[in-house]
Amino acid sequence: MGRPSIREKIVEAALDRFHLLGYNACGVQEIVESAGALKGSFYNHFKSKEAMAVEAIERYGQSVGLDILMDETRDPVQRLRDHVDFLVTRLVHHDFERGCLIGSLGNELSHSAPLVREAVERALDQWTELVEKALREAQRDGRLASGLDPARTARFLVNAWQGAVLRMKVVKNREPLDDFLEVTFRSILR
Amino acid sequence: MGRPSIREKIVEAALDRFHLLGYNACGVQEIVESAGALKGSFYNHFKSKEAMAVEAIERYGQSVGLDILMDETRDPVQRLRDHVDFLVTRLVHHDFERGCLIGSLGNELSHSAPLVREAVERALDQWTELVEKALREAQRDGRLASGLDPARTARFLVNAWQGAVLRMKVVKNREPLDDFLEVTFRSILR
Repeated sequence: MGRPSIREKIVEAALDRFHLLGYNACGVQEIVESAGALKGSFYNHFKSKEAMAVEAIERYGQSVGLDILMDETRDPVQRLRDHVDFLVTRLVHHDFERGCLIGSLGNELSHSAPLVREAVERALDQWTELVEKALREAQRDGRLASGLDPARTARFLVNAWQGAVLRMKVVKNREPLDDFLEVTFRSILR
Repeated sequence: MGRPSIREKIVEAALDRFHLLGYNACGVQEIVESAGALKGSFYNHFKSKEAMAVEAIERYGQSVGLDILMDETRDPVQRLRDHVDFLVTRLVHHDFERGCLIGSLGNELSHSAPLVREAVERALDQWTELVEKALREAQRDGRLASGLDPARTARFLVNAWQGAVLRMKVVKNREPLDDFLEVTFRSILR
């Protein structure tokens, strides 16, 4: 692998700044400078700030441990648990100052930035689909609470996780994440 | 009741703009003008934009149907259900373009605006406490899934609701709200 291109460095810097501060709290110039790129070179690389945010979301989506969910050789409940544990470890590592970039930008921009809204929708759909597959397997093994539909429950869990991460950012401790784990793995999955 | 004061009008306008666009996407001047106040009069009324946001959150908190949860003469599961139905009706009324101001500002500002973070924490705690009371009653009636702690489950549900509202803003339909209702009232409460 060669050195990252200027373009890649800008996407990385955007991901980092948006993740910590949100989208509207930081400007294109700040991002370009923190990437070590030349002032004014931004539009050589991206059509718009929004287009850059879409790439940041896509890059971030590759880092949320979906590979753990994809490993269908493993027990479905255990791989859901391991996936969440992976995410918890990262949130703790960042001292609860960074949540989920996908959820944060979805929250901030769904009304005003249609390209970002679409990228967030795609990312959440991909995530949900993998959770749904694991829930279908769990259901076959009799480990999904009776009466629950795997597709609906998958959406519910991905959303509940986003809400847990949101509350974590507010309270700045892991209690909301533990609440998610306890309630999910007691009442929805066994 | 007299006419709303300029100060009240500014808080209302801030609530309206922050609810639709978020905090960093709209400026103090835009809010003051949309309240019909004189340009430049803002700092006669508020110490800062952040202090105004705290008041907007407190005002918004009075409109989320907590009175429905407070009515302890009524069946606890039914009043939880009615409370959520009340919120769903309002989200539908706004064509899914506005989520929950408390969650939105918590998500956007927990890192950068400590007074807002505290106001969001207070609002979510108050909400959670009322849900917890209803869950304790439901548990006495044998209607809370076995093995669940009411305090933890109350936090989980308030957070899961925030996540459902976030996804609703992204997909712009009521599916995430229905997912919340179905899974909650099948697996957690009966």
